[in-house]
Amino acid sequence: MTIQIYDLCGRDDSLRFSPYCWRAKMAMHHKGLPFEGLPWRFTETERLAESGQQRVPVIVDGDRIVSDSWQIALYLDETYPDKPALMADTLAKASARFLNVWADTTLFGPLAPLAVKAVHAVLDPKDAAYFQESREKRLGKSLDEFCSDGAQAGARAALRQVLRPVEAALEAGPFLGGNAPYYGDYIVFGTLMWPNVVSPKPVFKESSRVADWFDRLLDLHGGAARNAPTVRS
Amino acid sequence: MTIQIYDLCGRDDSLRFSPYCWRAKMAMHHKGLPFEGLPWRFTETERLAESGQQRVPVIVDGDRIVSDSWQIALYLDETYPDKPALMADTLAKASARFLNVWADTTLFGPLAPLAVKAVHAVLDPKDAAYFQESREKRLGKSLDEFCSDGAQAGARAALRQVLRPVEAALEAGPFLGGNAPYYGDYIVFGTLMWPNVVSPKPVFKESSRVADWFDRLLDLHGGAARNAPTVRS
Repeated sequence: MTIQIYDLCGRDDSLRFSPYCWRAKMAMHHKGLPFEGLPWRFTETERLAESGQQRVPVIVDGDRIVSDSWQIALYLDETYPDKPALMADTLAKASARFLNVWADTTLFGPLAPLAVKAVHAVLDPKDAAYFQESREKRLGKSLDEFCSDGAQAGARAALRQVLRPVEAALEAGPFLGGNAPYYGDYIVFGTLMWPNVVSPKPVFKESSRVADWFDRLLDLHGGAARNAPTVRS
Repeated sequence: MTIQIYDLCGRDDSLRFSPYCWRAKMAMHHKGLPFEGLPWRFTETERLAESGQQRVPVIVDGDRIVSDSWQIALYLDETYPDKPALMADTLAKASARFLNVWADTTLFGPLAPLAVKAVHAVLDPKDAAYFQESREKRLGKSLDEFCSDGAQAGARAALRQVLRPVEAALEAGPFLGGNAPYYGDYIVFGTLMWPNVVSPKPVFKESSRVADWFDRLLDLHGGAARNAPTVRS
């Protein structure tokens, strides 16, 4: 049975930029589970009523509804133990859980000035109004100010610094999982897909271990992420 | 054969507070390798001449001399593959390498105001003069200013924030290695031993997953770290 995933999109249905949805989609690709992405917009909260909350990703797997990308990853490993593991043992689970909170608390910071205004630019009018009001209130400044050229230059410098542990980890092997990708790879990769899909500029302009790894992740699972539309494609 | 490790100490030989030496010592305990700690002071660089550099830890294992805690961990796993692995596979190696650079770039920041002046207070006069001059030059301010009560309060708040990924990882099991400790545990633990040994106040004042884990690490390997002298013991 095909799993359905509510997947955040722009006014163009095919533009899918949610970092959390990317984590969940790469997880389903990894496990070889067929799924269908249902285009969903920020203001369509009533469509998620059955999930008991208002954010994506939400997956519908037969009569099971699961929300929150971390919970979805746990659900997939528990429900489909015969498929390739996202987290094969407790070390993998602890390491991925570290990366999940590290990405949310540390990696998002320098990505936000690269992504926020670019997200706003791809939204349909109703979502765009909601997004601008809610984000400007949260940030305490206008989207233009938050994503100024100067802020973006500073963010790129901060991003290189924040990614130093990832750069170092990739000395051990081609993936954060070592010789093969695991859920930790998809957490960091999915987060980087946020600016990658919406920004007019590529996230990585220069070669590095991280940039090469990002390229490898784009190509995984039949180029699932490589073939996804971006504003540059 | 007993491995020797040059181990940073205060004017009291038994006070051992180097975060990098703690990483290496916990690694040797984990592998069940007997070792002898040679008290060493900052200004005794000539004693490390054979290592080709001026910092501890340096271990002497027969005719092999290895410096840098990360290189020591790799050396121990390579040289003693029949002893318990510090990093059993490439996922463990990648995850530990991430933590190594994360600890050095991120965790050190909020620990420094808790540790730096306290280190100065336990050094012998010659080391104390070197330490104060070199650190004040690096920090661009006096040790008193860098470690003021206000700076320490701010550092404790920042430490809670920085440790959020560790707190989350420990949902998966009692150790960062999951069900059992691995080198990643010793990296983070060793780093926290820096303020723990020299500070008049404990690092953790309230119960948390991290505080409970720190307690477990103190007790590991026959209480090797628990039994090490601190300024409070």
